[in-house]
Amino acid sequence: MWHVLNGVRILDLSRVFAGPAATQVLADLGADVIKVEEPGKGDEARGFGVTQAMVEAGITVSPSFVALNRNKRSMAINLAGQAGQSAVRRMVAQCDVVVNNFRPGTMEKYGLGYDDLRALRPDLIYCQFSSYGEAGPLMHFGANDLALQAHSGLMSITGEADREPVRCGTSVIDLHASLALVIAIMAALIHRSNTGEGQRVESSLLRSSAHLMNYFYGEYWSTGVVRKPMGTANHLSVPNQVFPTADGSVVIIAPANEMWRRCAQALDAQALDRPQWAGLLDRQKHRDELIQALTEVTSRMSSDEVVARLGPVKVNVAKVQNIGQAADHPQLAAVGAITHLDIDGRQVKSVAAPFELHGAPRTQDKPPPQLAAHTTEVLRELGLSEEEIANLDRQGAFSEPGRTSSQPATGSR
Amino acid sequence: MWHVLNGVRILDLSRVFAGPAATQVLADLGADVIKVEEPGKGDEARGFGVTQAMVEAGITVSPSFVALNRNKRSMAINLAGQAGQSAVRRMVAQCDVVVNNFRPGTMEKYGLGYDDLRALRPDLIYCQFSSYGEAGPLMHFGANDLALQAHSGLMSITGEADREPVRCGTSVIDLHASLALVIAIMAALIHRSNTGEGQRVESSLLRSSAHLMNYFYGEYWSTGVVRKPMGTANHLSVPNQVFPTADGSVVIIAPANEMWRRCAQALDAQALDRPQWAGLLDRQKHRDELIQALTEVTSRMSSDEVVARLGPVKVNVAKVQNIGQAADHPQLAAVGAITHLDIDGRQVKSVAAPFELHGAPRTQDKPPPQLAAHTTEVLRELGLSEEEIANLDRQGAFSEPGRTSSQPATGSR
Repeated sequence: MWHVLNGVRILDLSRVFAGPAATQVLADLGADVIKVEEPGKGDEARGFGVTQAMVEAGITVSPSFVALNRNKRSMAINLAGQAGQSAVRRMVAQCDVVVNNFRPGTMEKYGLGYDDLRALRPDLIYCQFSSYGEAGPLMHFGANDLALQAHSGLMSITGEADREPVRCGTSVIDLHASLALVIAIMAALIHRSNTGEGQRVESSLLRSSAHLMNYFYGEYWSTGVVRKPMGTANHLSVPNQVFPTADGSVVIIAPANEMWRRCAQALDAQALDRPQWAGLLDRQKHRDELIQALTEVTSRMSSDEVVARLGPVKVNVAKVQNIGQAADHPQLAAVGAITHLDIDGRQVKSVAAPFELHGAPRTQDKPPPQLAAHTTEVLRELGLSEEEIANLDRQGAFSEPGRTSSQPATGSR
Repeated sequence: MWHVLNGVRILDLSRVFAGPAATQVLADLGADVIKVEEPGKGDEARGFGVTQAMVEAGITVSPSFVALNRNKRSMAINLAGQAGQSAVRRMVAQCDVVVNNFRPGTMEKYGLGYDDLRALRPDLIYCQFSSYGEAGPLMHFGANDLALQAHSGLMSITGEADREPVRCGTSVIDLHASLALVIAIMAALIHRSNTGEGQRVESSLLRSSAHLMNYFYGEYWSTGVVRKPMGTANHLSVPNQVFPTADGSVVIIAPANEMWRRCAQALDAQALDRPQWAGLLDRQKHRDELIQALTEVTSRMSSDEVVARLGPVKVNVAKVQNIGQAADHPQLAAVGAITHLDIDGRQVKSVAAPFELHGAPRTQDKPPPQLAAHTTEVLRELGLSEEEIANLDRQGAFSEPGRTSSQPATGSR
């Protein structure tokens, strides 16, 4: 973690994906991220895909949770109960940022809406993440990454031509949204530092998906064109897609005329460097023939050979790798994109933040927290007395409803 | 545009996609982004997909360019020539941030490397964007979004089961990288404001792709599992995929037991609410039967009917929309995700920044600049005298090599 946001305290009420992914980047930048989890259960992501075999191998927390929750502290608070809500209100004066991804209206129902909280901390930065935003006909609809891949049209341009659409294999809309949230929060921090004022900021799966689709929507609005899936190709140039090799497949992208010429000469001048394919529009026009000819050439070579021929002549080329080949490719470690976490004595690899700051001091990343490991520590740090903490605890602020040693003083909603 | 980064001047030497997408977000936040383009040609993205029919309809700049270049100014500078390089060095003392996406080593060759420029502006923030980063075996390889979809393994998990992989239909790695760059630059601005120090920051297509794949790599590193494509489904739960309807298709996501029960009852209790599918593991075990039964039920209904039954009982459901349906869906406009630009008297719609700041003052967005529209204006603003400007112009700083009215005093490399 870098020491850039040191001194910025973030109370993170969000769970599962985009919210935690956002606060992880802020934690990587040195913010003190206090993750508030449901007593007993914790963030659902802790259990995602954890099998019996993994538990027997000592892996009790999911790779998804590890990927999004390093450098944070964890508190258990029952947000659905009045005592837990009181505990949050009691803490908020000492926090710079509050993040949540409840459905619109839930925080207000809990007495934790923006107006409630800024009364306690006037320069608070209040960050709301939702599915479709806070207005409009879909405002109250639940959604997730897949729902927005469908709604946004991303799915409609992903897949093989003339077959059913497919999803983009990773949770791209969630993860993209997480970076959008980080930007909104950092912008609000800069604005606060300039003016002394806090504010409410927001993003949504919808806004994230629209940003990812911006040039397709722009093209549609300007021209009426509705794009369709093209397998691995796109409409801008030829060749620009996957080609099979003797032992796998590669992508070859050579849009400009000079680049195509270098590509053709490096692979098989006789078969490919033809005058009728010299121009960009020629290659579009003779698309099928060219792809067929190039396929014949690459099919005779190994992937390594195609890369060795095209890389040095500056034609964009890359092997199609599976997850394991990609994760273990030496390039990833060489650029510092992997961080090592000590989880219960195991050394666990984790993908680092998606950027590098070369001039900020940094220290070793910390592993994701055990559920509720820092509840008392944080409450003390934020100025609650031992008596207050004990009272809130008796009222069920930090435990599952019905599981307290004494009866909660107030019912949970 | 919001007035948050007012007073931050960014000299943007990047072209085409991730770099311009990053500086557009910074421009949306109020930074003064000066886009440096190649004299005569400009950013290649200006011409992407512009057809004769579009030109005849008055559309001379591509939807891709509009999507990524609003709120900026444009200068034409011949960066490959010594006079242009001098012009950049002359301007840099008045700039807070310099952004480039040349291949590693090019800026140094131009005399515009970090060490060169920070000698002129000690607290400069220097932002480098590359394909694979600045070390490692692939450091000198060119790449683009598709190449990293292949290299990262994203392609290997996108597509139909047991068929060839496909690409994610949009340039997700480029656009995700753009937000990572924005975060790196904002972090450096905050660090500078805390310490007075500038620094070099960087990101790459590789870092962006790894962040998008983080939980897949983590799972592989922990367990050795290498995921494969599953069409529209994923491995975590059932149902969680596309289902056909009488007039289209919808995604239905009901992972938790209670949610599945509500889903089953709302659609067809008799066909779906069966005890043998009640538990999460039951549904995984009887995956094929359940999907078959649910398909039979949804196929009898319109998409609207499925949504009308599932939305109110809080089951995640969404229609699979095409680009036009998505772009024109009233939800997008309702949440303020569309901004309107005046381009040569035409009102052009554009997707806004992927977040909302509710407490920062804002003014109307400005359209993307004409190529070189602000060259002289910016040079004057940055303190160059009329004589200096005229000299640099005579030496070919602002024109295509060989196209100046007088011979350039220095050759271009």
